[in-house]
Amino acid sequence: MNTFHRLGVVGLGLVALASLASTPNLQSVRERRLDEYCEFLSIPNVAADPDGLRRNAEFILKMMRDRGLNGRLLDGDNPDTVPAVFGEVITPGATHTLLFYAHYDGQPVNPTKWAKGLAPFAPVLLDVPIESGGRVMGPCAGTAENSELRIAARGAADDRAGVMALLNAYESIVLSGKTPQANLKFLFEGEEEAGSPHLAEILRRHRGDLQSDLWVIVDGPRPAAGYPVVEFGVRGDVNVSITAYGPKRPLHSGNYGNWAPNPAQRLVSLLAAMKDDEGRITIPHFNDDAIPLTPTELAALAAVPDSAPALATELLIPRPDGGGLPLSQLLTQPTLNINGIASGDVGAAASNQIPTKAEVMLDLRLAPGNTVPRQVSKIVDFAISKGFHVVDHEPSPDERATYDRLVKITSTDGYAAQRTPLDLALATEVVDAVSKATAMTTVRVVSVGGSLPLSIIEHELGAPLLTIPIVNYDNNQHAENENVRIDYLWSGIEVLTAVLAVH
Amino acid sequence: MNTFHRLGVVGLGLVALASLASTPNLQSVRERRLDEYCEFLSIPNVAADPDGLRRNAEFILKMMRDRGLNGRLLDGDNPDTVPAVFGEVITPGATHTLLFYAHYDGQPVNPTKWAKGLAPFAPVLLDVPIESGGRVMGPCAGTAENSELRIAARGAADDRAGVMALLNAYESIVLSGKTPQANLKFLFEGEEEAGSPHLAEILRRHRGDLQSDLWVIVDGPRPAAGYPVVEFGVRGDVNVSITAYGPKRPLHSGNYGNWAPNPAQRLVSLLAAMKDDEGRITIPHFNDDAIPLTPTELAALAAVPDSAPALATELLIPRPDGGGLPLSQLLTQPTLNINGIASGDVGAAASNQIPTKAEVMLDLRLAPGNTVPRQVSKIVDFAISKGFHVVDHEPSPDERATYDRLVKITSTDGYAAQRTPLDLALATEVVDAVSKATAMTTVRVVSVGGSLPLSIIEHELGAPLLTIPIVNYDNNQHAENENVRIDYLWSGIEVLTAVLAVH
Repeated sequence: MNTFHRLGVVGLGLVALASLASTPNLQSVRERRLDEYCEFLSIPNVAADPDGLRRNAEFILKMMRDRGLNGRLLDGDNPDTVPAVFGEVITPGATHTLLFYAHYDGQPVNPTKWAKGLAPFAPVLLDVPIESGGRVMGPCAGTAENSELRIAARGAADDRAGVMALLNAYESIVLSGKTPQANLKFLFEGEEEAGSPHLAEILRRHRGDLQSDLWVIVDGPRPAAGYPVVEFGVRGDVNVSITAYGPKRPLHSGNYGNWAPNPAQRLVSLLAAMKDDEGRITIPHFNDDAIPLTPTELAALAAVPDSAPALATELLIPRPDGGGLPLSQLLTQPTLNINGIASGDVGAAASNQIPTKAEVMLDLRLAPGNTVPRQVSKIVDFAISKGFHVVDHEPSPDERATYDRLVKITSTDGYAAQRTPLDLALATEVVDAVSKATAMTTVRVVSVGGSLPLSIIEHELGAPLLTIPIVNYDNNQHAENENVRIDYLWSGIEVLTAVLAVH
Repeated sequence: MNTFHRLGVVGLGLVALASLASTPNLQSVRERRLDEYCEFLSIPNVAADPDGLRRNAEFILKMMRDRGLNGRLLDGDNPDTVPAVFGEVITPGATHTLLFYAHYDGQPVNPTKWAKGLAPFAPVLLDVPIESGGRVMGPCAGTAENSELRIAARGAADDRAGVMALLNAYESIVLSGKTPQANLKFLFEGEEEAGSPHLAEILRRHRGDLQSDLWVIVDGPRPAAGYPVVEFGVRGDVNVSITAYGPKRPLHSGNYGNWAPNPAQRLVSLLAAMKDDEGRITIPHFNDDAIPLTPTELAALAAVPDSAPALATELLIPRPDGGGLPLSQLLTQPTLNINGIASGDVGAAASNQIPTKAEVMLDLRLAPGNTVPRQVSKIVDFAISKGFHVVDHEPSPDERATYDRLVKITSTDGYAAQRTPLDLALATEVVDAVSKATAMTTVRVVSVGGSLPLSIIEHELGAPLLTIPIVNYDNNQHAENENVRIDYLWSGIEVLTAVLAVH
């Protein structure tokens, strides 16, 4: 494969193409960018290591300086808060301001779960994913020989790839000798995987700096089928824990069986009543406050290629939930999922007992129109309607002796969904730029199934948001052996170079 | 409290009383017996540790030798089978043979669930149960200072207490200088908590040794109200494990929520349909093959003091299951209990995922008339009637890809219920001996709620069976923090000394 062809497919940015193609040291530019990324990935980026996160922030500032950007740290109210990194490019005569966001922190790691030869913060090159028999091809270092190789490290895909691609896309513009059309701002958060506990605070403290006409989030994986997407929304999220209570102490299931109420039986009766056999939520009025999809949104959903059949085959799912609705539409609706349930023991550790309590952790995804308190109330009210007495604390012995069918229900802070109108003019320009950079039709995703606290941003700054995912779908995001394909980095840089040039 | 009075209430055996009361070293006898018991309880006695079980058997042989009994091990067909321990006393001129049974193995343990300072096989003394704020008063060792103390260890109550009380009751007879009236046999099983998988085999191999006119089982707790009981029946028992299947790998609950079926949701829907809000089993025809109670049995049930109100108060149960039927009657009926349920994680370890499988362990107690295969079939047929495809093995990827609503259902060997006629003559003698030893009216229990493999014994040897429980009701049998009250050990020895003297 000749260098020019490779550049044309997964190059350094369309805008940069003309100048770089004539540069004799093109390979060395790529190698330098990968070397720098490998160094970045060597720095631990987990919440348990605040010093590591600060070193990430310092490294990003250095990356910015090397590209002629004056970056700085945005603090929270408490100086110990992990800072965000901010940089901006003022363009004389610009009529719009675009703010680009990525996060530099990663999910917690359990190094013992990583494959032999891999460690979260000792990046190496892999040929294919570990789960497909992948082998270590060498230490992470600049290479342009084989762009289908993967770099394995925590945050290699989620989401230091976003930081890397944005800053290198900016460099591509600079190297090309062009100037951006809009004012550009960059914001890199360091607490996203911890639930962004100080993001609203940082946005409030630095409201003036962060004004923009559009936020562009670079995060998440591209579809397995490979087509480009721009995402217009995310679901909200809240976790609800329900604990049902039985006898004060574990009871012999023979000596008390048929007489002592079993808390697991009571919990399953409550949970079973929440859904029908198609997995549809049967809690009355559960979906009433979700804003119905507009005709434009329904049309966009209909244009999404149907990945469900391939997924069902791969995941051994003979018949999906949802009563026949398409996957893309199901992902716009509120959910109620059992993350986990536990009472007593199963398997070899099981004993013949009536347990004292049974606990479930639910995950509720929210659609636009839902609010966190209302969504939690629906669960509480449903439990009450089924004859349960609901408390929000560990019940006292008096309460347990008084209230039959007693449950404790608690919830996390959670956050609402966010959705940007599909017909927003500036959004259309971004979509067109992505299509042009990839020479493919960009699919407009009304809402992804996952969640990000974008509603906080919209609420604090009033800016609409879009998300552009750039990394490979099989990146083991949030799990062990996380990895990013190098050619996805190159194509991500190319796409973002085009988006940074939107006027 | 003077020594004589304490002996009179919870002494070393009525028969032994005259000789021991005049012995200066009475305390030291008790201390020696407790020291020995503490040593016994230090030996692991769970099925997962066959070597530990053999050490238990060897310890029992030593206890027998120390009391002038020639014990020996009864093997199964396979020399690796955990042996039973047997001993006998031939009484010249005896017209009857009584066989006394207890088991030395205990339920599986999960040491992490035991309270701080407690471990399954490091016995300690407690003041009151852990659940009532109990504190560790010191290591387990001979003490007669406070007989209301408890010894905490796996098997302290269920059922090494039976072994301990029987051998010490026999010692009391020997120490008193008397001889028994009947031939006495002792049989201590090591696989009862595992469902007695080799008991029938051992009974068949050693049929000649084990002939008797009556089996007396020493196992289970006395009623909370403290009156003496003799039990004429037990329920049968079988465990049924059900596993429901979801996607091949854990899925992000946002990216797949509403579309990928959740195995925990499917399992709870199946389990919820098995019972109504009163805890009554709603599986069609579930109780049809249970033999109705006779008028004599109904009359005996009506004579059982109603312990339910006191139990409900103590156990923090505002409203028992059973639709208003009395506890004693509910304990004669078949049960269906959730011992444990597990899928994904709860609490701090929970993650927003759709789990790959969900598992429940059920305990089914059987009434006379039920058979193990029929009872298991009722569960399988019910799952099928609810649209599940049932397999008896870990399903292959092909099966998972083919069958929606797929469950694996497996069961233990299990055994049937057993019930001895209330009017058996030798049984009446035993009941009278217990009444005399306790100076109280003995309550005849038609059937306890718990299970022992008595049907196997009745089937193999043709002998009728009775059970005499001796330990405190609040012993956390089968659960963490199992314990036995020392004064219950003393009174158990006293009662058994009287029963050993039946002619």
